[in-house]
Amino acid sequence: MKVGIIGATGYGGAELLRILNSHPEFTISAIYSSSQQGKMIQEHYPHLTGIVPNTLEEIDPNKIAKDTDLVFLAAPSGVATKLAPSLLEAGCKVIDVSGDFRLKNTEDYEHWYQKEAAPTEWIEKAVYCLPELNRKDVQTGTQFISNPGCYPTATLLGLAPLAQSGWLVEGSVIIDAKSGVSGAGQSPSLATIYSELNENLKIYKVNKHQHIPEIEQMLKKFGYSSPITFQTHLNPMTRGIMATIYGNVNTDVTEDDVWNLFSEFYRNEPFVRVREMGIFPATKEVTASNYCDIGISFDERTGRVTIVSVIDNLMKGAASQAVQNANIMFGFEETAGLKFSPVFP
Amino acid sequence: MKVGIIGATGYGGAELLRILNSHPEFTISAIYSSSQQGKMIQEHYPHLTGIVPNTLEEIDPNKIAKDTDLVFLAAPSGVATKLAPSLLEAGCKVIDVSGDFRLKNTEDYEHWYQKEAAPTEWIEKAVYCLPELNRKDVQTGTQFISNPGCYPTATLLGLAPLAQSGWLVEGSVIIDAKSGVSGAGQSPSLATIYSELNENLKIYKVNKHQHIPEIEQMLKKFGYSSPITFQTHLNPMTRGIMATIYGNVNTDVTEDDVWNLFSEFYRNEPFVRVREMGIFPATKEVTASNYCDIGISFDERTGRVTIVSVIDNLMKGAASQAVQNANIMFGFEETAGLKFSPVFP
Amino acid sequence: MKVGIIGATGYGGAELLRILNSHPEFTISAIYSSSQQGKMIQEHYPHLTGIVPNTLEEIDPNKIAKDTDLVFLAAPSGVATKLAPSLLEAGCKVIDVSGDFRLKNTEDYEHWYQKEAAPTEWIEKAVYCLPELNRKDVQTGTQFISNPGCYPTATLLGLAPLAQSGWLVEGSVIIDAKSGVSGAGQSPSLATIYSELNENLKIYKVNKHQHIPEIEQMLKKFGYSSPITFQTHLNPMTRGIMATIYGNVNTDVTEDDVWNLFSEFYRNEPFVRVREMGIFPATKEVTASNYCDIGISFDERTGRVTIVSVIDNLMKGAASQAVQNANIMFGFEETAGLKFSPVFP
Amino acid sequence: MKVGIIGATGYGGAELLRILNSHPEFTISAIYSSSQQGKMIQEHYPHLTGIVPNTLEEIDPNKIAKDTDLVFLAAPSGVATKLAPSLLEAGCKVIDVSGDFRLKNTEDYEHWYQKEAAPTEWIEKAVYCLPELNRKDVQTGTQFISNPGCYPTATLLGLAPLAQSGWLVEGSVIIDAKSGVSGAGQSPSLATIYSELNENLKIYKVNKHQHIPEIEQMLKKFGYSSPITFQTHLNPMTRGIMATIYGNVNTDVTEDDVWNLFSEFYRNEPFVRVREMGIFPATKEVTASNYCDIGISFDERTGRVTIVSVIDNLMKGAASQAVQNANIMFGFEETAGLKFSPVFP
Repeated sequence: MKVGIIGATGYGGAELLRILNSHPEFTISAIYSSSQQGKMIQEHYPHLTGIVPNTLEEIDPNKIAKDTDLVFLAAPSGVATKLAPSLLEAGCKVIDVSGDFRLKNTEDYEHWYQKEAAPTEWIEKAVYCLPELNRKDVQTGTQFISNPGCYPTATLLGLAPLAQSGWLVEGSVIIDAKSGVSGAGQSPSLATIYSELNENLKIYKVNKHQHIPEIEQMLKKFGYSSPITFQTHLNPMTRGIMATIYGNVNTDVTEDDVWNLFSEFYRNEPFVRVREMGIFPATKEVTASNYCDIGISFDERTGRVTIVSVIDNLMKGAASQAVQNANIMFGFEETAGLKFSPVFP
Repeated sequence: MKVGIIGATGYGGAELLRILNSHPEFTISAIYSSSQQGKMIQEHYPHLTGIVPNTLEEIDPNKIAKDTDLVFLAAPSGVATKLAPSLLEAGCKVIDVSGDFRLKNTEDYEHWYQKEAAPTEWIEKAVYCLPELNRKDVQTGTQFISNPGCYPTATLLGLAPLAQSGWLVEGSVIIDAKSGVSGAGQSPSLATIYSELNENLKIYKVNKHQHIPEIEQMLKKFGYSSPITFQTHLNPMTRGIMATIYGNVNTDVTEDDVWNLFSEFYRNEPFVRVREMGIFPATKEVTASNYCDIGISFDERTGRVTIVSVIDNLMKGAASQAVQNANIMFGFEETAGLKFSPVFP
Repeated sequence: MKVGIIGATGYGGAELLRILNSHPEFTISAIYSSSQQGKMIQEHYPHLTGIVPNTLEEIDPNKIAKDTDLVFLAAPSGVATKLAPSLLEAGCKVIDVSGDFRLKNTEDYEHWYQKEAAPTEWIEKAVYCLPELNRKDVQTGTQFISNPGCYPTATLLGLAPLAQSGWLVEGSVIIDAKSGVSGAGQSPSLATIYSELNENLKIYKVNKHQHIPEIEQMLKKFGYSSPITFQTHLNPMTRGIMATIYGNVNTDVTEDDVWNLFSEFYRNEPFVRVREMGIFPATKEVTASNYCDIGISFDERTGRVTIVSVIDNLMKGAASQAVQNANIMFGFEETAGLKFSPVFP
Repeated sequence: MKVGIIGATGYGGAELLRILNSHPEFTISAIYSSSQQGKMIQEHYPHLTGIVPNTLEEIDPNKIAKDTDLVFLAAPSGVATKLAPSLLEAGCKVIDVSGDFRLKNTEDYEHWYQKEAAPTEWIEKAVYCLPELNRKDVQTGTQFISNPGCYPTATLLGLAPLAQSGWLVEGSVIIDAKSGVSGAGQSPSLATIYSELNENLKIYKVNKHQHIPEIEQMLKKFGYSSPITFQTHLNPMTRGIMATIYGNVNTDVTEDDVWNLFSEFYRNEPFVRVREMGIFPATKEVTASNYCDIGISFDERTGRVTIVSVIDNLMKGAASQAVQNANIMFGFEETAGLKFSPVFP
């Protein structure tokens, strides 16, 4: 299968190139950029020297449709809104890694993203797929997948078993999320320069993060309908997301019950690793991989569960999850090209 | 005034030396160590070369009482329990930076610290003093101050105005705390080596941190009596603590009300800086200083307040707060020797 | 082919496990540890949870020889001296990643390592193989390979073309080498804890690094016989080595000549990437890969060449180079299992 | 004395504000910025909240001359060329922290800086002062001091004793310099963002650094007239410079001789700390201070001296050295306001 990548110069694009370069089913046929056409990707990303020989091409939907079977849209929010429809009409399959097609409610999009939403007809076409929770929504013929956000991936995998169990007390969910800096992408700004972030810890977008409605949209499907508190922190590290999730449970559950719930829920999932009771994952234990690792505890003093969920924001939070979705879309083994180990230390 | 430091080779001790070296009222007369007697401090801490000429001496309470007016006990938990009584009996004034005399309830100490508690009579003698909240408890003649823990300092300064207001919903408080690694001290272990912590984020002591009862003890005094949820994370940075504090408010308060409450509460405090509405502090903005910076938000969707409180764990969380307490104890200007700026970047 | 790893709990061992787990020809049949027998490797390295199911076994040379075709010895210096002979006598093929069999001159070993050297007969059996420079020394029947050190790998690949050209002025070579902290391994010590190394830069083993004689031994073969100056620095990063190499050239060479020399020398090497003139590699551009990237400049003002050579110390400097050597030893494609991209950012 | 700072929003400016805020002789009367007039400095630098109350003012030389006795010019290269003359003509004393007036030879400036040089008459007026080496050049009435560059400060303090001794072999000097990222200032660019620099090590401006002629200009005065090799590396840390300096000595000197030469040379210098033989400084041992620490070794195998010199690039490499120069200029105690300890860890 021939795949193309739009936005290959971003960090998500770089990881797509790394993964697809070793994938048994997909071949990188072309890469596209709106601003750096004609440049070899190895000039922008020297680590790909001798590995990815491609040169960045201009974005021409018809040509793209001719040259590829599948396009990954790894562009910033707002760009996919413009590009996806013409790519889809030209017959491409599309996996959008941006936030443009995740929210079914366009008012939510416009409120939280402060941008104009995509046309409703295209939003309806997009299948939101966090594979462990939505893979059945992708069917033969699905042409367009909307890849989940990095924070929602970590959060929803951490919350899904409990949210679906009915044990969770409405109104009690708080997510304290922490991310590495690569989530901010490669655009330079005062907020992302080294001297400002190193040896520093910041909270940002307090009560305003655009991933809030994406998480709430899924929680509602699970039967949890209250608004959540979700805060995000920028940590002095390049990769990794940890969501520390707090919620009260409304029945006489024990720590064993909660742990068994999670263990059972993810028993057959190749990319979710529920840690033994009393053991909690650290972000570096999933670096450069497609894993989501989860630790669970229950505090009898407060009746509160604390769940720790970690992913690599550029991988399970973006690129490798997009490839997992591509595998699903084309009916390949879901783990194809993704069975590599995290890199540690 | 002549001061001595027991445990000068720890990181808290190093910061005490740095601060006291420039203090207008105190003079470092002697430094003590249980394991490195006879060594010059500059052999252990080369940054002090030519600045602190002292040699580490053995710990002999009677000699210490003769040589000093005040001793800072900057030793690990368990050591102060043994040393403080003899120092006090020998006539020294003592400021204990460890956790040994903070909890009035010895059962709490033994449960959370997993160590034998100090004798009750000495615990009763110890005045727990987080200056902004307890300075009136220190009176003429106070001989023994117990310096607050790093996490409780950040947390209690962040929570005090709200906890005392009566607006806080019982059972709603969750504190998600993040610390730099220097809090773990200088003892090498697999858990503190660079390659394990760099580019990594960990949660630790889940539901078991010994600072939980210290925070609850103070909150009770403020009128908030429920157990709290308090989780701690190790961040890839040397210094800094951020406490992200969540709580529901039970009345029709607005964000303005909450902000005004804090602003008023700390109006005359030289070391607490309440940030403008919508602005939140980062840890590096207080590095190497005695400041605690606080940001406040209120989310109408959830009725929940999020408070961000940052300190330098080695300074306001240990050494500089101990000096602030020493100033209070001796009746000096509370800001004496502490009016320096944070170091940025 | 069944392979075993002795010293699997070290960082080099962890990378061997990661690489071999995806290798098309080798299968991890057993892992060994002198101190943690009976422990699952995923307890020590949680990132391998669900990936490497092995339990650490005790080191019994006869059993190892029965269970494996090849053993990687990834133990600290001094251990291989004791284990390698019995493994070889028991019929195992062995690749030693430590420094015990690299120096042909036992006096050099004892002077620089301050340890007793291995028996001469076994040192003679060991084939020192930095593949790009020595692969022809490995022949059918070679049973024992000594894998180069991390610094020598970066340095020798950077110097080889020039040292063999005859252009290099005797006595002019200075190597200023910089390494990440993972080279110090996983043993905790004051010298490796986070708070001491973060935001810090140190020089160490000044004029005393045990890799000096290893580099000189190879340079002599190339025809450069003077002692070198070689200094090593510890940088606040986990992985990566950069060797900045200085040398004067004795003829009327131009920058073009020097660049062409390198370009030609490595034209067919899959794992050495000579950068375009004026472009210099950064360490992160080879992270988690088997590449060595090289940049070259010539300064007419001083007649001096500056060569920059970077590797991942745990990979090309240890584990992946060992696998490259294993491929050579068994006659597999030299790139088998090693054709993955560096991880960036 | 009333002082003003032009370019107060840069990192050097921030450190000037921190130092001057506690200085016994100088008072910050005004701060200036070309782009952020009307903004309070605490909006740009929140760590100064409640400490420096000033608002940024526009740069009007006549007004500045009226309001201040001394101006620190902490603007980027090229700006001082334009501002200094009018400030000096208006009667201000000026200390320029940029590179515009360091090189006496304008051709050198234009070649290495790739900018137009300042008018010769003003260059001649500027007294280049690295206090330990040039303080006698500042005399009563000196109105204009050019503050040395960060790399030249570390390098020249490391080389001066040897360069003046006559022992140094012409043509043998190589300086391998490493810097933290703050030297690149606060302007965002792809080259300074966190994700590109963290866990990475880069060489830059190979053979082209503009500090080369500044170092050579001083070395010539010392009697060493060959061109030097000087390479610079960007390290994943915010602050700190280490210059590792290599040079051959031409006589039968011993390590003792070299060490004694340095020890004697700096015997009375309050801010240069020559370490004991065999001990080498790390960058963090001078963080946030005005110290330059030096370690020395001599290798008999190669006849080569290796000198390690470390400073905090923003302090002794910029702001605190500028204050040291101001002290000299006004005849105050040279250590006034600078006698604080480095911050460690």
